[in-house]
Amino acid sequence: MSAKGNAAIGQSGGPTAVINQSLVGVIEELGRQPQIGRILGARHGVRGIINGDFVPLNNLSAELLEQVAQTPSSALGSTRDKPDEQYCVKLLESFKKHDVQYFFYIGGNDSADTARIVAEMAAKSGHPLRVYHVPKTIDNDLRTTDHCPGYGSAARFVALALMGDDLDNRSLKGVKIDIIMGRDAGWLTAASALARHEDTDGPHLIYVPEVDFSEDKFLADVDRVYTKLGRCVVAASEGIRFKAGDKNSLVTEKAVQGGEVDAHGNKQLSGTGALGDYLSDLVKNKLGAQLQKSTGAKMRVRADTFGYLQRSFPTIVSPTDAFEARLCGAMAVRYALSAPEGLTSGSVAMRRVSEHPYKIETFATALGNVARQTKPLDATWVINGCDVAADFVTYAKPLVGPLPIPGKLI
Amino acid sequence: MSAKGNAAIGQSGGPTAVINQSLVGVIEELGRQPQIGRILGARHGVRGIINGDFVPLNNLSAELLEQVAQTPSSALGSTRDKPDEQYCVKLLESFKKHDVQYFFYIGGNDSADTARIVAEMAAKSGHPLRVYHVPKTIDNDLRTTDHCPGYGSAARFVALALMGDDLDNRSLKGVKIDIIMGRDAGWLTAASALARHEDTDGPHLIYVPEVDFSEDKFLADVDRVYTKLGRCVVAASEGIRFKAGDKNSLVTEKAVQGGEVDAHGNKQLSGTGALGDYLSDLVKNKLGAQLQKSTGAKMRVRADTFGYLQRSFPTIVSPTDAFEARLCGAMAVRYALSAPEGLTSGSVAMRRVSEHPYKIETFATALGNVARQTKPLDATWVINGCDVAADFVTYAKPLVGPLPIPGKLI
Repeated sequence: MSAKGNAAIGQSGGPTAVINQSLVGVIEELGRQPQIGRILGARHGVRGIINGDFVPLNNLSAELLEQVAQTPSSALGSTRDKPDEQYCVKLLESFKKHDVQYFFYIGGNDSADTARIVAEMAAKSGHPLRVYHVPKTIDNDLRTTDHCPGYGSAARFVALALMGDDLDNRSLKGVKIDIIMGRDAGWLTAASALARHEDTDGPHLIYVPEVDFSEDKFLADVDRVYTKLGRCVVAASEGIRFKAGDKNSLVTEKAVQGGEVDAHGNKQLSGTGALGDYLSDLVKNKLGAQLQKSTGAKMRVRADTFGYLQRSFPTIVSPTDAFEARLCGAMAVRYALSAPEGLTSGSVAMRRVSEHPYKIETFATALGNVARQTKPLDATWVINGCDVAADFVTYAKPLVGPLPIPGKLI
Repeated sequence: MSAKGNAAIGQSGGPTAVINQSLVGVIEELGRQPQIGRILGARHGVRGIINGDFVPLNNLSAELLEQVAQTPSSALGSTRDKPDEQYCVKLLESFKKHDVQYFFYIGGNDSADTARIVAEMAAKSGHPLRVYHVPKTIDNDLRTTDHCPGYGSAARFVALALMGDDLDNRSLKGVKIDIIMGRDAGWLTAASALARHEDTDGPHLIYVPEVDFSEDKFLADVDRVYTKLGRCVVAASEGIRFKAGDKNSLVTEKAVQGGEVDAHGNKQLSGTGALGDYLSDLVKNKLGAQLQKSTGAKMRVRADTFGYLQRSFPTIVSPTDAFEARLCGAMAVRYALSAPEGLTSGSVAMRRVSEHPYKIETFATALGNVARQTKPLDATWVINGCDVAADFVTYAKPLVGPLPIPGKLI
């Protein structure tokens, strides 16, 4: 073992617009620490580690680092591998072989769990490894932290998309349904509420996975808005389900034949327009048919599924999100070296210390407080099963950054 | 009839990110002309005219006008109505009733045709009406003009989306298919080529409606790229068809049951994820199944349909496009008043007078040169049926504005 310890960094799971800010935050802070030797970037997360597939990250130019920080998606490559016990044994072997004493893993709750297992194994085996998890997810569903790096920028995309789509729908009236990412949590879909400035602005209806979805209620909701405004913009999560909490009651299951399950046992909902088309057909065949029968008028119904655009769109970045993602990366290095309250391994979390002006501070938390379980949208923030409360808007606004105010003539 | 003539303005067809720049260009220039009386904004295009449903546009504050100019979608509301002879008679009656002597219609080729019919009817009836069409379409398929206001910003969205999606696909490898707007012309899909900076950057395959689409060739193309790079990003137009020029051979027809026809007799292709899902299933069931059989490896295949986000996304605006859209609005007013080469009615077009530096000038052209027929992508710009030529990139680059250059580590 050399006098200095080496550090490894990996990125995991779905990319975000600012996951490279965290990566660069880790790299920059490691570069400032004299006890760190080589900085090894693992290609495609844990997969790169077990294969010894590393990119050297010492001595990169400040210019390249800044360019990488501003580039969406995971610059080291990502993975969907969820290590089991055997896989973690191989990770530890690789760390020993490459004298890695510090491991930084940027990812969601599954990554935090991997970090936890590896840290425990290392402790048992006597290898001096410190593992810090840097939170990342557009879903905003990690426990303990006030919010997650990656969420603000994705939420900004969703808010802008709904603002534009509502203006589009004002111009050519009809029913428009937008399907938004978020398998189990409605945080991202809820952010569509930030698109509104005036009473008649859409989205007029918001559906999240945290409450039961009923087709009859959905149709009644759309009918009510359409009757009042002559149009209706709907934001619905890809994860809406007939029974909240029951993964086997997804509405999209009704729409998709078969369906694909990923390595974590999660059903694949993205990359298909099936749910949007299903809800759209439902409105057309019920409300549209009724309208045509009673008045002869035709109801224009469309659906869009935002898909991967939400998580990797260049230039749509919340400045706050970018700043905090970088900060969380840097703080992971400091916590790994200082082990606050004895946490030689842990996860970086954020606490909101002031609302006006918005201000956060970071802290270290045990990996077990972040691993595995996720954090749903607060049920009190869901209104009538089809909207979100003003408190949610207050919560989300500073994370998303300033939004344009549309100019209107009619 | 008063000493001054009134002016009416309408917006038509699918909205764009800069259609309000043209609107404000018309309003501002009208405000400078002493012979113009009232400025009437027609709510929802021709429909507002026949219903006498006007918004007064004189004396709006410069601040509101600027805010409207920067807001996507049609601030006066739009319409899909395609006036027939009888409808045009009603338009003329309304113009006479409201003493409208100048009519500015911001729209595509259908709007140019409406403008042409109304101008001819007015001339026959002796009503002193001058009609100017202001070009607008994200499809870039209007004849005579070098390019259309609205295209640059939509093309910018597509280029950025593909850049982000390619980075996403580098990170989590697989086959990704993106479906892009453009019913009959591949201009917008072709703009995806602007996302590339290096050899391995996607989109790796580009399919436009101007050439025959073959499922076998498509699969062979994807297989070739995937074998080489371990991934493949595809940009395909919603209007790809088995026989170029044959509207009855749309690939999406195979994917959609029934299908909806709009008021212009055009098949409704947007607002459904069916084509993306169809192509995705094709790759999964053929190439994916082969791969799994021969190596046991799984092929990750996803599709996104960009939908309406392409045409109304706030903040994604090409500065050149915004400038030119405003200019075309202002020039429509000047041409209507000056009638260059006797064109008391006409359409505003752009001519590229210099490539380096990029420079355009506007000119007036007869409405018949823009109405009805559309302009396809130059066939010499399509390479091997699955890419676009460097000449196209040279053409499109200045219209889209500067794009970020991704920072890469692997």
